Amino acid sequence: MFSDTDHAAMQQALALATLGLYITTPNPRVGCVLIKHGQVIGQGSTQPAGQDHAEVQALKDAAARGFDPSGATAYVTLEPCSHFGRTPPCADALVRAGVARVVAAMEDPNPSVSGRGLQRLRAAGIDVRCGLLEKEARELNIGFVSRMTRGLPWVRVKVAASLDGRTALHDGTSQWITGQAARDDGHAWRARACAILTGIGTVRDDDPQLTVRAVETPRQPQRVLVDSRLEVPLDARMLAPQHGPFGRPALVFCAVDAPERRRELEARGVEVIVLANAQGKVDLHQMMVELGRRGINELHAEAGNKLNGSLVREHCADELLVYLAPRLLGDAQGMFNLPALARLEDAPAFRWHEVRQIGDDLRLLARRADHA
Amino acid sequence: MFSDTDHAAMQQALALATLGLYITTPNPRVGCVLIKHGQVIGQGSTQPAGQDHAEVQALKDAAARGFDPSGATAYVTLEPCSHFGRTPPCADALVRAGVARVVAAMEDPNPSVSGRGLQRLRAAGIDVRCGLLEKEARELNIGFVSRMTRGLPWVRVKVAASLDGRTALHDGTSQWITGQAARDDGHAWRARACAILTGIGTVRDDDPQLTVRAVETPRQPQRVLVDSRLEVPLDARMLAPQHGPFGRPALVFCAVDAPERRRELEARGVEVIVLANAQGKVDLHQMMVELGRRGINELHAEAGNKLNGSLVREHCADELLVYLAPRLLGDAQGMFNLPALARLEDAPAFRWHEVRQIGDDLRLLARRADHA
Repeated sequence: MFSDTDHAAMQQALALATLGLYITTPNPRVGCVLIKHGQVIGQGSTQPAGQDHAEVQALKDAAARGFDPSGATAYVTLEPCSHFGRTPPCADALVRAGVARVVAAMEDPNPSVSGRGLQRLRAAGIDVRCGLLEKEARELNIGFVSRMTRGLPWVRVKVAASLDGRTALHDGTSQWITGQAARDDGHAWRARACAILTGIGTVRDDDPQLTVRAVETPRQPQRVLVDSRLEVPLDARMLAPQHGPFGRPALVFCAVDAPERRRELEARGVEVIVLANAQGKVDLHQMMVELGRRGINELHAEAGNKLNGSLVREHCADELLVYLAPRLLGDAQGMFNLPALARLEDAPAFRWHEVRQIGDDLRLLARRADHA
Repeated sequence: MFSDTDHAAMQQALALATLGLYITTPNPRVGCVLIKHGQVIGQGSTQPAGQDHAEVQALKDAAARGFDPSGATAYVTLEPCSHFGRTPPCADALVRAGVARVVAAMEDPNPSVSGRGLQRLRAAGIDVRCGLLEKEARELNIGFVSRMTRGLPWVRVKVAASLDGRTALHDGTSQWITGQAARDDGHAWRARACAILTGIGTVRDDDPQLTVRAVETPRQPQRVLVDSRLEVPLDARMLAPQHGPFGRPALVFCAVDAPERRRELEARGVEVIVLANAQGKVDLHQMMVELGRRGINELHAEAGNKLNGSLVREHCADELLVYLAPRLLGDAQGMFNLPALARLEDAPAFRWHEVRQIGDDLRLLARRADHA
């Protein structure tokens, strides 16, 4: 059904989509390649939200290079949109340009709109195929797919630990268990996330900035804090205002209504949301619903073992990103604060997804076993 | 210096050597291939101790196939021996057979004899080369190399743990954290070891047989117990007599002189060795010296976190063989009982050597950082 040329062109479209890894949020990362008579005549990738989608970029690129896209094949890593959002529908642009064939890696993951863009193309007489390198395309937009299908961000919990599963000495010393390469790699994962989550314990212990520094990015992820009793110091570094076109306020979820404290935070440009569960803690599931509603695709959690444990216990952790240093810390802090089990069968189950060596450390990716 | 044919022939010799993985102890695993006019005329691998070495096997094989080895090249994964042990020197056999060239992967690791076999060949006018695929050859005999160069076995500590570094629930439940494939793989590592080590805690909790069952082997490793106060029950399964040509008594190291208990054990065919350190525990380093003296090349430790911790603390653990299940156990038993550190820099350091997926689990091999 798909030729070698199709595969090569879609690979290229996926590579172009990857260029949008740090910038397209809340939109998906999409790449588009236009091929005519065996030649690439245009290519594009999704720009920051409100600017061009990949298809429009590719058509503009073809025009700039003096090519006529009529009769061409368009390879897109995601079904072209069929609705007016902040930009006009890409499906219409492709129809107007007169492309003869469209190959998409996957349908729009939003079940209520999926297929409509392809329909629109088919209705215009275009030869439409879907499903080429779909797995790769889904991986690239794992967060967008999660938000569209579940209304929830894809939650990735990052932990740096020793071979024996320890994250810090008892006095809190954790700098640095893993090496520079692993820490830099961790920033690349931060950069692709829409938001970075931490807990009040980590703010107290480490006062992190929660920003991307080790890799270059024009956009900083939104900073999100779980702080049930709203105890965060006003001068916490993660609350510092972010300027520029991508700047967004720090978000603090709490479980208490503390109007004065709240006003102080809001006066500093921080947004405070009260979301308590029956135990008087932040309702983590409802927090994820709220973050999904706000367009957070990938949520990158870097917290201590308490919040890590709560995320797992409350089924909010979709993926574990674990950097494992080849050292033994022995009697020290664990990775996930979880209660003792009565039976091994009750242990939260994941499956190994990927393993890589990063510098002197291992990087392990595990996904919740109930994810396909 | 080495041709493609040389490489291919040595690869084959290494594959033959691997056939001896479970049986050659205390001898090294060696393979030999004889090539003449571009054709394999004979091949062999080390037989159980006291029987033919690889070179003699290969010469016999050539004779059985009707080939004259004179003028041939012999590829051997280890320098041919030059001394009378339980068998006559292989170097002499190669000289007598009239081979024209010998390619060896590595010299004899025993510094006091290394080079003599090659010298003997050179003195007979044979063209001798050494060092082809040396790294692979060393890996195959990592225990023999350790014993020859340090007088100590290569100590491999096997642990099955959850992703968060836990080996058992607080009630001791540990069956099974990892899957069937990982457990079977663990038996293959047992099979290649000369001896399996455990501690009295594990005997009390699990009463293991300490035998190889999941893979076929004609030889069972010797069973070794660390039992400082000589408390092992007389009916412990690991003490059961092993019959057959490879049978060897179970070995119990203790730190107390308890003549009566000792006699009871000896009456059951168990050997008891008293080796106390200043703290009234078994002196683990001296135990390794004793095991080295007895010809133990690879020692496979499967113990609880106490003995595991002691092996690391006393610098006896050369390699960690960790099966990591993608589950979280939370509040449960750790992998290594090690005291809290004052500084991260003091953490026992390893380096990642190999990672593989075995069934649903990961298998991690880490080696002590001070090993080359």
